[in-house]
Amino acid sequence: MKKIVVALGGNALGNNPLEQLEKVKHAAKAIVDMVKEGHEVIIAHGNGPQVGMINSAFAESHLVDNSNPEMPFPESGAMSQGYIGYHLQNAIQKQLKEQDINKNVATIITQVEVDESDPAFNNPTKPIGSFVNLETAKVLEKEKKYIMVEDANRGYRRVVPSPKPKNIVELNIIKTLVEANHLVITVGGGGIPVIPDGNGYKGIAAVIDKDFASAKLADLLNADMLVILTAVDKVKLNFGQENEKDLDELSIKQMDQYIKNNEFHAGSMLPKVEACKSFVNGNKNRIALIASLEKAKEALLGKSGTKIIGG
Amino acid sequence: MKKIVVALGGNALGNNPLEQLEKVKHAAKAIVDMVKEGHEVIIAHGNGPQVGMINSAFAESHLVDNSNPEMPFPESGAMSQGYIGYHLQNAIQKQLKEQDINKNVATIITQVEVDESDPAFNNPTKPIGSFVNLETAKVLEKEKKYIMVEDANRGYRRVVPSPKPKNIVELNIIKTLVEANHLVITVGGGGIPVIPDGNGYKGIAAVIDKDFASAKLADLLNADMLVILTAVDKVKLNFGQENEKDLDELSIKQMDQYIKNNEFHAGSMLPKVEACKSFVNGNKNRIALIASLEKAKEALLGKSGTKIIGG
Repeated sequence: MKKIVVALGGNALGNNPLEQLEKVKHAAKAIVDMVKEGHEVIIAHGNGPQVGMINSAFAESHLVDNSNPEMPFPESGAMSQGYIGYHLQNAIQKQLKEQDINKNVATIITQVEVDESDPAFNNPTKPIGSFVNLETAKVLEKEKKYIMVEDANRGYRRVVPSPKPKNIVELNIIKTLVEANHLVITVGGGGIPVIPDGNGYKGIAAVIDKDFASAKLADLLNADMLVILTAVDKVKLNFGQENEKDLDELSIKQMDQYIKNNEFHAGSMLPKVEACKSFVNGNKNRIALIASLEKAKEALLGKSGTKIIGG
Repeated sequence: MKKIVVALGGNALGNNPLEQLEKVKHAAKAIVDMVKEGHEVIIAHGNGPQVGMINSAFAESHLVDNSNPEMPFPESGAMSQGYIGYHLQNAIQKQLKEQDINKNVATIITQVEVDESDPAFNNPTKPIGSFVNLETAKVLEKEKKYIMVEDANRGYRRVVPSPKPKNIVELNIIKTLVEANHLVITVGGGGIPVIPDGNGYKGIAAVIDKDFASAKLADLLNADMLVILTAVDKVKLNFGQENEKDLDELSIKQMDQYIKNNEFHAGSMLPKVEACKSFVNGNKNRIALIASLEKAKEALLGKSGTKIIGG
């Protein structure tokens, strides 16, 4: 029996409610397969397309009638946690029942603390929302103080900072539920980013990478494994080229060298391997896995995926 | 020390994110005051204006560009639970810290089971979303099979069924957290309405009255008290008339007589007193209170509010 944090990609959850209702079934199957093997599973997930959809819907409704409110990023993130969590917990509950496993599932609305002095705040890089033309981009820069960047011929998009997760505000809640043998869905979309504010916290316009948030969760729960489920079966070298090569295992030493050689794409595989590194470095018995949703079961048995180990 | 389910009105939470951030502070103060008195508090809340805002934003964004999805009611409700829960838990956490109380708060995305044969499904009465003109109403009736009703000169609105809550899907999760001494925010907006579907549940277009859902929650947790916080200090007879009269105490027998006399308005006080009745009738030691948010503390001390008792 291992304690496993599983991180699901937001892109694997579809772009609208009907798609999501179907796609969560695959995720639920992969998760319940792990539970059936006797593992203690904690579920994290991305929200890229979903939080974009929510933020855009409010922005468009505000354009139609400016008495309709726009929705700030932390609140859009909280909505996405409810929206995705509901479908995921519903599908997992059904799958558990079908497999005759007596367990409960909960989605926890989760705030993740970031550091206001995180260098990411000086260099916003995470594109969010829909594309606009140069004219609109200029208006948004002036009126909303948004930072807009051009994205290869597709137009302009707002970018927000992507600071590293520092702490999980609802950690004690998660621990109580995990200890009571329940399944927990948490840090959705990397968590609602908050910074200290007096005796509490306040939301901030930022997006925490869901793989880093999952690694932080796995670290704070002292999990045995972090499993990042994505669209590819294994981490690859020379990705997309003729001499592309699958990696079955990857040590931190090798990873550092490959990162230096720019083997991993900044917007996709790089944060995943770096998140794995941050988890594995915390304790020599820890293992991280990067695998596809479809082959999650095989990956846990060592038959697919890339295993990331210390040293 | 009493176990108390507190139901907050959605109307007391404001109509946009900035308003809500301010208004949750009052709710947080009222709740933490009860916690400070040593009570075990479980928090329920409405979502009328908020779920309407979410549903309308998606509807308008879909009208602008029909590749943007509309958001069905169960999913809109799940979003509202995340949106309201985030602000509430954040404000309560801050208030607890300020009062030096070491407790954690969690929002649980909550599904509430209803009965498909509930008579409410034959008689939709709960208005949702924005007003439209007759022409649009006819299109929606034809294309979406919506049921539209005219609302006194303001136009047409969709109505959905308001079935009674039958069970709370995440009840074991709530029990675990309450037993571990955490504060729980649950059954937001009356809960996401679901009906049995194979081995699980599926969402359905309906709105569960948040007072009935709170009473069901209080019943299933075997709480000592149900406290419904609203805009008025006490339940009144001859409401709004010259001979208006405050009620300090109300027995079920008296209530039944007053209901017969049409003393309580169907859209506001009637469901509140009926929800109190359903809770109080479950056990003779139970007490329900209807009071204002501002005087919640006094109400618990017997100095404000209307106390509803069995018999």
